[in-house]
Amino acid sequence: MDLYSGYINKLIEELAGLPGIGAKSAQRLAFHIINLPKERVERFASTMIEAKNNVRYCGRCFTLTDQEICPICANAKRDQKTIMVVENTRDLAAYEKTGKFDGVYHVLHGAISPMLGMGPNDIKLKELMQRLQGDVEEVIIATNSSLEGETTAMYISKLIKPTGVKVTRIASGVPVGGDLEYIDEVTLLRALEGRVEL
Amino acid sequence: MDLYSGYINKLIEELAGLPGIGAKSAQRLAFHIINLPKERVERFASTMIEAKNNVRYCGRCFTLTDQEICPICANAKRDQKTIMVVENTRDLAAYEKTGKFDGVYHVLHGAISPMLGMGPNDIKLKELMQRLQGDVEEVIIATNSSLEGETTAMYISKLIKPTGVKVTRIASGVPVGGDLEYIDEVTLLRALEGRVEL
Repeated sequence: MDLYSGYINKLIEELAGLPGIGAKSAQRLAFHIINLPKERVERFASTMIEAKNNVRYCGRCFTLTDQEICPICANAKRDQKTIMVVENTRDLAAYEKTGKFDGVYHVLHGAISPMLGMGPNDIKLKELMQRLQGDVEEVIIATNSSLEGETTAMYISKLIKPTGVKVTRIASGVPVGGDLEYIDEVTLLRALEGRVEL
Repeated sequence: MDLYSGYINKLIEELAGLPGIGAKSAQRLAFHIINLPKERVERFASTMIEAKNNVRYCGRCFTLTDQEICPICANAKRDQKTIMVVENTRDLAAYEKTGKFDGVYHVLHGAISPMLGMGPNDIKLKELMQRLQGDVEEVIIATNSSLEGETTAMYISKLIKPTGVKVTRIASGVPVGGDLEYIDEVTLLRALEGRVEL
């Protein structure tokens, strides 16, 4: 459809490439952006580029940060001997919001999924095992309670057990098939408290 | 929450400022953008700026275009004597997609709304009246069937009637309170066919 202009169509295409943005929303967003003041559009564009250029993985837990080591890993008040393993940074944020977990994290950036062709080498698992050579007492597996999350949890627990480090899994207070980031804090806390040794 | 990085937070803020994007979606989109390849982010940013810089209002119908006069107004095969008045460019796109309207458009960029402080001078109404000094046979008012859309339709019809130009309103096949851009093409066509003189 060459209704508007190649410029608008290109912008609509870029927006429609974002997750959860359909064709109609992309159109709506494109018109909104074009109607913003020039300075706002330029600020938006440069914010995007700056974020991309300055944000990297934490050298220890692999969460997204603009420093070598993220504020959580760098915080001496956090219990560095207790590592919570999550699938992604959004899940870390969900647990962090409860304000009750004082350990540190390990972000896998995915889960094992034969269906999607994601194997153990496609997530930050090697890196987790390396961390266990330090002084670690417990690994709490907080992957999602989806098929992939459960598979990943089982895989990791089998890998860790021989090392003698305690492995736990957050309790099944988290509804089956649920995505951690959309679950209320009370449920997240209950799941943490009810964790069982694997 | 200073969990991630000021760069991410700024990007989340920009995204959350877009219509229909809540806090959770903004977070999800920000992480998605940061995980894109650098070239993709740069292309996205420049597409946004180019669209903003090159897209303007058509000098005749005020739709968004990158030319002086939009392709529809410039098309000699379109019936330039029949003008369909719509609230915005998305509504124009919705009717254009039916492929059955061969007249031209006039985009108001809004509707009269005392509640929102939008008066007749805040939409492209003066510009519509100027067009009527040319050779125009019919003005079809296709504003939304919302309170504002109906108010605008009534206002415009009263303004045009003294000029002797025929004024019609698309039929109420469009559900009350509905937004043109989300309505299926069949309903849009039925509404066009059933239009009545005001």
